[in-house]
Amino acid sequence: MRTSIATVSLSGSLTEKLTAAARAGFDGVEIFENDLLASPLAPEEIRARCADLGLTVDLYQPMRDIEAVPEEQFARNLRRARHKFALMDRLGADTVLVCSSVSPLAEADDALAAEQLSRLADLAQDFGVRVAYEALAWGRHVSTYDHAWRIVESAGHPALGTCLDSFHILSRSTGPEDLDGIEDIPGEKIFFLQLADAPPLGMDVLQWSRHHRCFPGQGGFDVAGLVRRVLRTGYAGPLSLEVFNDVFRQAEAGPTAVDARRSLLVLQEEVGVADLPAPLAPTGIAFTELVTRDAEPVTALLGRLGFTRTARHRGKPVELWEQGDARILVNTGPAAPADARHRSGGRTSVDGTTLAAIGLESPDPAAAARRAEALLAPVLPRRRGAEDAPLDAVAAPDGTELFLCATGRPATPDWRADFEDLPHPAAGPRDLRVDHVALTQPWHHFDEAVLFHRAVLGLAARESVDVADPYGLLRSRAVTNADGGVRLPLTVGAAPGDGTAHARHIALATDDVVAAARRFTEAGGRLLPIPANYYDDLAARFPFEDGELETYRALGILYDRDEHGAFRHCYTHTVGRVFFELVQRDAGHQGYGAVNAPVRLAAQHAVR
Amino acid sequence: MRTSIATVSLSGSLTEKLTAAARAGFDGVEIFENDLLASPLAPEEIRARCADLGLTVDLYQPMRDIEAVPEEQFARNLRRARHKFALMDRLGADTVLVCSSVSPLAEADDALAAEQLSRLADLAQDFGVRVAYEALAWGRHVSTYDHAWRIVESAGHPALGTCLDSFHILSRSTGPEDLDGIEDIPGEKIFFLQLADAPPLGMDVLQWSRHHRCFPGQGGFDVAGLVRRVLRTGYAGPLSLEVFNDVFRQAEAGPTAVDARRSLLVLQEEVGVADLPAPLAPTGIAFTELVTRDAEPVTALLGRLGFTRTARHRGKPVELWEQGDARILVNTGPAAPADARHRSGGRTSVDGTTLAAIGLESPDPAAAARRAEALLAPVLPRRRGAEDAPLDAVAAPDGTELFLCATGRPATPDWRADFEDLPHPAAGPRDLRVDHVALTQPWHHFDEAVLFHRAVLGLAARESVDVADPYGLLRSRAVTNADGGVRLPLTVGAAPGDGTAHARHIALATDDVVAAARRFTEAGGRLLPIPANYYDDLAARFPFEDGELETYRALGILYDRDEHGAFRHCYTHTVGRVFFELVQRDAGHQGYGAVNAPVRLAAQHAVR
Repeated sequence: MRTSIATVSLSGSLTEKLTAAARAGFDGVEIFENDLLASPLAPEEIRARCADLGLTVDLYQPMRDIEAVPEEQFARNLRRARHKFALMDRLGADTVLVCSSVSPLAEADDALAAEQLSRLADLAQDFGVRVAYEALAWGRHVSTYDHAWRIVESAGHPALGTCLDSFHILSRSTGPEDLDGIEDIPGEKIFFLQLADAPPLGMDVLQWSRHHRCFPGQGGFDVAGLVRRVLRTGYAGPLSLEVFNDVFRQAEAGPTAVDARRSLLVLQEEVGVADLPAPLAPTGIAFTELVTRDAEPVTALLGRLGFTRTARHRGKPVELWEQGDARILVNTGPAAPADARHRSGGRTSVDGTTLAAIGLESPDPAAAARRAEALLAPVLPRRRGAEDAPLDAVAAPDGTELFLCATGRPATPDWRADFEDLPHPAAGPRDLRVDHVALTQPWHHFDEAVLFHRAVLGLAARESVDVADPYGLLRSRAVTNADGGVRLPLTVGAAPGDGTAHARHIALATDDVVAAARRFTEAGGRLLPIPANYYDDLAARFPFEDGELETYRALGILYDRDEHGAFRHCYTHTVGRVFFELVQRDAGHQGYGAVNAPVRLAAQHAVR
Repeated sequence: MRTSIATVSLSGSLTEKLTAAARAGFDGVEIFENDLLASPLAPEEIRARCADLGLTVDLYQPMRDIEAVPEEQFARNLRRARHKFALMDRLGADTVLVCSSVSPLAEADDALAAEQLSRLADLAQDFGVRVAYEALAWGRHVSTYDHAWRIVESAGHPALGTCLDSFHILSRSTGPEDLDGIEDIPGEKIFFLQLADAPPLGMDVLQWSRHHRCFPGQGGFDVAGLVRRVLRTGYAGPLSLEVFNDVFRQAEAGPTAVDARRSLLVLQEEVGVADLPAPLAPTGIAFTELVTRDAEPVTALLGRLGFTRTARHRGKPVELWEQGDARILVNTGPAAPADARHRSGGRTSVDGTTLAAIGLESPDPAAAARRAEALLAPVLPRRRGAEDAPLDAVAAPDGTELFLCATGRPATPDWRADFEDLPHPAAGPRDLRVDHVALTQPWHHFDEAVLFHRAVLGLAARESVDVADPYGLLRSRAVTNADGGVRLPLTVGAAPGDGTAHARHIALATDDVVAAARRFTEAGGRLLPIPANYYDDLAARFPFEDGELETYRALGILYDRDEHGAFRHCYTHTVGRVFFELVQRDAGHQGYGAVNAPVRLAAQHAVR
């Protein structure tokens, strides 16, 4: 199916928007009137620009407050419409969106509405234009798609059809039966289909629509269900995104357009009209890669956590540190190409250690990479050096490099083969493994990151939680595979420029966090000090065994529990922009200690 | 009356919050439990810190999900409460907030609620603590203040009273009669009064409360009406602000605390319990001051607009440029002290011209300054130099210096006396005067700026409008005096760091914008080019005289009209961070051409 996007969904000048839409692979655009008015390009020049970019102009929008008005007003409306139809002729747009009236002049008179829309369609026909009439959810008299369709049907004019908009329909829907009427509309009378999702906000529908729409799969609507019904009518027009969103207005147009098109690809897969390579969820974390100019501080920390340096890359200044199944690469070479990471707040230019890459164990790295590429993930060069194994890797929206690995599997290129073993002491009694890797995200790209990890990697997105940092509210949402072998909490700060929100961390699981914390401190490590007040509150909230709470208090171990069991955790100090967490997770506990995050964040601010 | 603020209303660590509250002049604080838990200070140390700062601990909050639960659960709740009462003893807090339960365990049983709250109050009494029971607007069974009061009344316990919260009451109120019950509560049983305002958002009340509360006078609630009723009961506790707001969480605590206390002062004035000097609205713009390192570009622009250099400051490198009643100072000396302006995005450190001060004609500058000082406006030194007239001046929240002037009035210090006349040609035929001065505001401080200009200067705030910039949404709201002699549109960008949003402008009124624009271009001035598409749209929207639209198109004049008449306007290019607008305003038109702002903003982005 053809895909299209409304220019209002993207930031910048009209030419920036068109370029971004074309680069992301859209087939067409809806031209939003205000974007045209503000453009120095004449309509013919816009038409030529679109043609050069391989874009069709699928819709001109919107015309408002046209129908069911007194004749004198309607004459003025027709005069205005004639101007617009002439403009559309210059622009090469053959369909115009007419929104149901919100004017106080409009009358509750369907016959009058049909008659005037029919006269509008007469005029449109003279210009080779089709009129797509849409019910705004807050229309004065016409606010439902079936009402708009009844008017269109009774007008019976070949140049008059309806436009369906998932926001206007689903924001008013109380159940799937509200959508049954869609399939009563002949597909050829659905002149256009606009798609948007939205989070469940329960707010005034006009404000909700104008500020909080999002791309399909990023909100709470069953957009796929609606599209399935529309496709059953025989609708053959484009799937077009019309998303008003305060964040997208500020974000760079290029990445937003890619995010937009990815959401449509996933939607098309969901409704069965796209042929994408199947998702292949990763099964575990092969390694995490830290980049640093000075390896000493972070390797000292790794040593105190029980990691041992076991191998060295054959061609680059990268060391492998291991403990059981936990592997951490420490890279002191030049960081990965800047363009792959320019959106993560310039982390590579900051002194200190950053978490730059993750190796994910994949059942089939090549197939997983094919899906990623089909879903517009930037594919990274397969070889970083002539001597390296040809690894599949893609860049996440935040610039993090994701390597798709097959560690220790014969007949598949293995990253481990690029490393030569170093003499090292036999493994000690330590038992840490990776519980989760927490990836703070750059401002503006949170929903995009969640969709990326869900769609491209086949991970499942868990509940979104708000966390109060002393200097702003954070939002966090984990993406995980089914068995918990891969857990990636994604977190975004409340505002740009908060350096703290950009620290990332690796959480290491243990069966005995007290013993692990003691070994760490006995090795000279410093755990994050937690205020005594926190433990007084724990005492009020939970019963503890004798001495248990005192142990936690002495070490700085935080505690939470749900119906499945307890979650005990503590934090190392921060090196550059990376810190570590020690975690003891009772079987079945699915959380990450979010309830303790405000105390942890305040403690981290305090030691800075 | 005593004033208090909840620590959750301010950003930062607990000690930062306490310091900010004390500096702003609050008498006490509500300690929010999470702020205490995250603090490294022991309760005794917090108590001592408060005492040092002259703050009382008026409330500890909140305790949740206490009442109307099965006995076994209530026993656990009492155990938890005992911990908290012991903590309050150490903290020196004698009142605890108990919110009505949202627990699924709670039963719809008022008698049980009263009985358990009574037992809680028994325990509290042992610790010298009073329990203030409050109805959350989303409480499971108790969600209205009168319901909470009935339970408190039937319990009849001396250590149990109610807490009234303006948000919880007014967010559910459908009319003033809903508040009649307040006056049936004996004042001594109202243990606490929490105040917050909120904008009319029509959204889920829990989300509305948690993210969008604001200080009284900054939202849409009749907080004063509620406070009047509470005061009639004989309530003698503090007026305390409890405001959950995503913006305040990120903003510096000090200015937020000042904004908070100013809102309470205005509220106290409104309900007749504060004695502030009366407001004295300014009657006109005496001058606008531009600060620049290089006067040439902006004075060339002023010359082309018809301004003449008429005088020079006797002691400083400041020139006066005049045209009719419009006066502009061009200051090439060191800018005003950096501390007065550090919040305006570091404008003084940017090369180029900035709009740094405004002279406002005041009926009584000294009295106006006394009101400003009483409302916590930073008062600037009366003399900038030994030789200067002793002018009253205050700093606005954005750092703009506001001089209170009495131009040409005998017996009052006159800024004009600091200037000596320069020889200059006789005034020409030009007739410009100041229509408005548009002041872009730093991120985070929009509501604060509106309240400041309203309360401190006695201006009226007009409707708030959203304006789409190509790179984000702007919000704009004008403050004006009654006759339009002073009009200051305040605008804030959608995100920090957008330089464009920080350009300010002076709009000059003329009776013939076409003639003024022609004179400007004939003098060599460049007007902002406006796209042809804009004029094609105007042609569709309005009827024009023959040739009228072509004239506007040729010059770049924008057009709007309302029921009172037309508004015609055009823009000069930008010098540094300042530009000028030429305005022809039909009598009665109250707008500022907001409908044209997206086109203007896009054009300004295009010429950068």
